[in-house]
Amino acid sequence: MGLKGGPTQDEVMAVSLAKLGIRPGDRVVDVGCGTGKVAIAASRLAERVYAIDRRAEAIAYARAQAAAAGVSNVEFFEGDAVEILPDLGPLDAAFVGGSRRLPEVLDLLAGTVQGRIVVNAVMIETLHSAVATMQRLGIFVEAVHLQVSRSADIAGGTMFKPVNPVYIIVGGAGCS
Amino acid sequence: MGLKGGPTQDEVMAVSLAKLGIRPGDRVVDVGCGTGKVAIAASRLAERVYAIDRRAEAIAYARAQAAAAGVSNVEFFEGDAVEILPDLGPLDAAFVGGSRRLPEVLDLLAGTVQGRIVVNAVMIETLHSAVATMQRLGIFVEAVHLQVSRSADIAGGTMFKPVNPVYIIVGGAGCS
Amino acid sequence: MGLKGGPTQDEVMAVSLAKLGIRPGDRVVDVGCGTGKVAIAASRLAERVYAIDRRAEAIAYARAQAAAAGVSNVEFFEGDAVEILPDLGPLDAAFVGGSRRLPEVLDLLAGTVQGRIVVNAVMIETLHSAVATMQRLGIFVEAVHLQVSRSADIAGGTMFKPVNPVYIIVGGAGCS
Amino acid sequence: MGLKGGPTQDEVMAVSLAKLGIRPGDRVVDVGCGTGKVAIAASRLAERVYAIDRRAEAIAYARAQAAAAGVSNVEFFEGDAVEILPDLGPLDAAFVGGSRRLPEVLDLLAGTVQGRIVVNAVMIETLHSAVATMQRLGIFVEAVHLQVSRSADIAGGTMFKPVNPVYIIVGGAGCS
Repeated sequence: MGLKGGPTQDEVMAVSLAKLGIRPGDRVVDVGCGTGKVAIAASRLAERVYAIDRRAEAIAYARAQAAAAGVSNVEFFEGDAVEILPDLGPLDAAFVGGSRRLPEVLDLLAGTVQGRIVVNAVMIETLHSAVATMQRLGIFVEAVHLQVSRSADIAGGTMFKPVNPVYIIVGGAGCS
Repeated sequence: MGLKGGPTQDEVMAVSLAKLGIRPGDRVVDVGCGTGKVAIAASRLAERVYAIDRRAEAIAYARAQAAAAGVSNVEFFEGDAVEILPDLGPLDAAFVGGSRRLPEVLDLLAGTVQGRIVVNAVMIETLHSAVATMQRLGIFVEAVHLQVSRSADIAGGTMFKPVNPVYIIVGGAGCS
Repeated sequence: MGLKGGPTQDEVMAVSLAKLGIRPGDRVVDVGCGTGKVAIAASRLAERVYAIDRRAEAIAYARAQAAAAGVSNVEFFEGDAVEILPDLGPLDAAFVGGSRRLPEVLDLLAGTVQGRIVVNAVMIETLHSAVATMQRLGIFVEAVHLQVSRSADIAGGTMFKPVNPVYIIVGGAGCS
Repeated sequence: MGLKGGPTQDEVMAVSLAKLGIRPGDRVVDVGCGTGKVAIAASRLAERVYAIDRRAEAIAYARAQAAAAGVSNVEFFEGDAVEILPDLGPLDAAFVGGSRRLPEVLDLLAGTVQGRIVVNAVMIETLHSAVATMQRLGIFVEAVHLQVSRSADIAGGTMFKPVNPVYIIVGGAGCS
């Protein structure tokens, strides 16, 4: 969840991108792009990625990451997604890593996204809000709870250290 | 486990004690007692608890905890469980929080414990060793993987923070 | 969750009872007692248990289970917990396995329970409602997500089969 | 895994493919390809995929799936991977969905795979064997425990139903 929570974990990003189902030629938005990690990964699958964050430091960091990765098809927007989304035109997929105005963002995305909308949530309030809003909009597909643990060496053996569980909420027009 | 890994988590202890099925009058051993947390909890259900740890600092700490809790039916043994177990006589239940010589400990326990034997493991090597040894001894009942996450407040909401997953391996004579 | 969902899993019950912290002499209520499994287990720790369920078949089943277990300190009530709770007098602990009127039940329990209130939830709407209501009442202590997997034999080896994850929400006056 | 256990779950496949890190031009092997699901997905990222399974019915099924998907860069081999692998020449990545001779397969792969080797395991014996063999070969990178739960509608709400947890074991020459 943005700079505050650090970058999206690799496994969570892999599942989120798979749920998005980005195809060549797609125009994708990343709402609350944080470090830009998901936007940069999506840019390798999509035609164009729009990355939005209301925090100047996030946009600066993400832009630098994209430049370092040699990525040129990500366009960055500093500001409120609710104000920026209406200007982006039709979209094929949307990833929401974080937003203070999630219901309004989902309202807007439901009207312009042709394919999948994927929300990452760590808070149960966000999970509840995302599911309830998608159900109200008639676009709810599924929610997935992902609990990843990674091996770590300890004295003489291997244990598993868990990372914070994430809810991946999937919506989309015409999906079942 | 033990002092190194901190005390057994409340939820893991609750499930482990439930699997042990201690009854009034029971004589119970705690192998690798660490902080003494499980031994002290078991002492409220059992007639007598024998708590073994090879580390002097663990025994000193656990003994002080038992005294502070007003518990008088736990007997402490500093040393190697493989050498101490043969002197304890018949037992009704055994908890193994940790041991460097797990197969030998299980061999001994299989011969003297009437009821359940419960092993806590965080390492996959310990899990594998406990299951394989119990299967060889014909006393394997089940293994449970317990993943606990606890709520934590973050900005404006509630998230879940996972604690390290634990394997609870259960054996017992005449169990199915 | 009652007869519909089958009895509470052993591990979930063990953790729920540990969170309840029942002591000898306690008067405990079980709201939505279903098969009576938790009420019967609680009756071995408490002075008296009041088990409520709005379904006649649940009460009949639970009463038969209690009789078969030789338990005589559980009192059964068929009906709506919101109407029955005010007549029970002061309580020491409360377990809520299920309720269609959870906020009202928690309102009532917050006024009469001296110790812990523990709710089991499988639905995210129930989780959200329980946490939000407890926070509003100022009695929220913690929520725990419990993911249990049990070993199962398959061709030549041992795998883990997960059981449905459960949220255990804990509240209580004067708790921290 | 394979036909017996049904196709690899979407989320497990997404994480496994991300760990494989397949790049355009890569030559990839899928040992124990089962339904062919992973081989077909990998074929969209790789130059060429070699899919091996000792079961004639798996190869027939996977070949039909590949044809139906319009995939032409997957080559199928019915037989024992230990005998087939030496003839495939140098490889860039390897996915092992299942094998009765895992240590020998990993021995062979360690000598011919330039990039990542990813094993999926549901049995703890397979987990243990994969980690121990990779450690012996000096190619162990990490193991990940993936616990996925998916939302399901029940009376008036949304709950999570868990799918069987999977271990994803990652190895690779020159990886850290």
